[in-house]
Amino acid sequence: MITSPDNQQLKTIRKLADKRHRMRSGLFVAESEDLIEAAEAAGVEPEAVLVSGVDVEPALLAAVSTLGSGTRVMGIYRQRWSAPGGDLSVYLEGVGDPGNVGTIIRSAHALADGPVTLGPGCADPYSPKAVRASMGSVFHRPPAHAAFGELAGTTMALDARRGLPLSELPVVGPEVVCLGSERAGLPSSVLAAAQAVAHIPVRKDGPDSLNVAMAAAVALYERARMAADA
Amino acid sequence: MITSPDNQQLKTIRKLADKRHRMRSGLFVAESEDLIEAAEAAGVEPEAVLVSGVDVEPALLAAVSTLGSGTRVMGIYRQRWSAPGGDLSVYLEGVGDPGNVGTIIRSAHALADGPVTLGPGCADPYSPKAVRASMGSVFHRPPAHAAFGELAGTTMALDARRGLPLSELPVVGPEVVCLGSERAGLPSSVLAAAQAVAHIPVRKDGPDSLNVAMAAAVALYERARMAADA
Repeated sequence: MITSPDNQQLKTIRKLADKRHRMRSGLFVAESEDLIEAAEAAGVEPEAVLVSGVDVEPALLAAVSTLGSGTRVMGIYRQRWSAPGGDLSVYLEGVGDPGNVGTIIRSAHALADGPVTLGPGCADPYSPKAVRASMGSVFHRPPAHAAFGELAGTTMALDARRGLPLSELPVVGPEVVCLGSERAGLPSSVLAAAQAVAHIPVRKDGPDSLNVAMAAAVALYERARMAADA
Repeated sequence: MITSPDNQQLKTIRKLADKRHRMRSGLFVAESEDLIEAAEAAGVEPEAVLVSGVDVEPALLAAVSTLGSGTRVMGIYRQRWSAPGGDLSVYLEGVGDPGNVGTIIRSAHALADGPVTLGPGCADPYSPKAVRASMGSVFHRPPAHAAFGELAGTTMALDARRGLPLSELPVVGPEVVCLGSERAGLPSSVLAAAQAVAHIPVRKDGPDSLNVAMAAAVALYERARMAADA
């Protein structure tokens, strides 16, 4: 039983709250029974697991938790990365909110066969908030890292206004749905280089756009449905 | 210029962080220029607006802000409520996360003509987190409060597994998409009483379900598309 805050594993967990340390070490932390179980279900072995009251004094584990209510279990895992690919996948550029990145990883796991590929300016998918928002999908379908130019298949840029309505653009072969930041959208270079551009029709009396994670879920649902019907 | 933390408006803002006080007073707070502008665009008059450095000392406004980075402007507004209705709308029961409630209000504003009706067990749509997640849609399309039994039109329960795939259930007249909590789904009484049940097809190797806000966005998109095609 760990009884000192100077324990090496607790020190590692504390450090892994910092993105630079996550990058350097290639490790990350998952907390809560749900996420530890998701890792197990995905066949991912932890580097270490600390159960409150069994492996470590509850107060010491609570002190390194990023959850408001403390936590009963924390695991340290090695980051895993996929290669871009699949018949349907997502490319993100400039999506800086970790909750959105994690939620999109979950939606892609539900609706697509390919990973979420992260381009420049995206939040770390292995930050505590992103891992939690992924609800464990980050274990089942690890994200990829690549630049737009490295993508294979039809790159389809999703814009708030431009291009055809999503349901009027035929699906032809493997497709990468590309989404940009919530405010600025995709960079003009990506919009120009994408093989197709489409938008989700929004009511005239509605807001300017959908939340980027909503847009990703709608686009993946629609393209998966169209591909199945084709 | 307000220079004392004992100022009445600052006291009101502090109190409105508490749900009970929001309920008693019928007021709520919006912070950030975006939200204040959204209110203006929707023609909603504030009870008061405090601009940092103009109406109030910056440090005093920062002290009552719920944003990590402080805020440049805060407004106090009167809560507004819609009646349930419209050709396409949403009913939520047991959706306790304010971020999800706010995001669904934004999605409904984008994709449907009716409000989000809140049944039992939902987060307060006028909490700071929900207002922020709505990105101002709460001003344009105020939520409604009602029990399931009070809904008009076809009630369509969205379940993780049951019923037809969403795209195979015909749209017949005005429809209310009903969603439950992320873990438990809708109560069995609602599932039994709903006029139709449908699900969003999810990959067999995918997660058990989508995030409830994703499910709402996908369902509203799909039902709006089908109604337009019909």
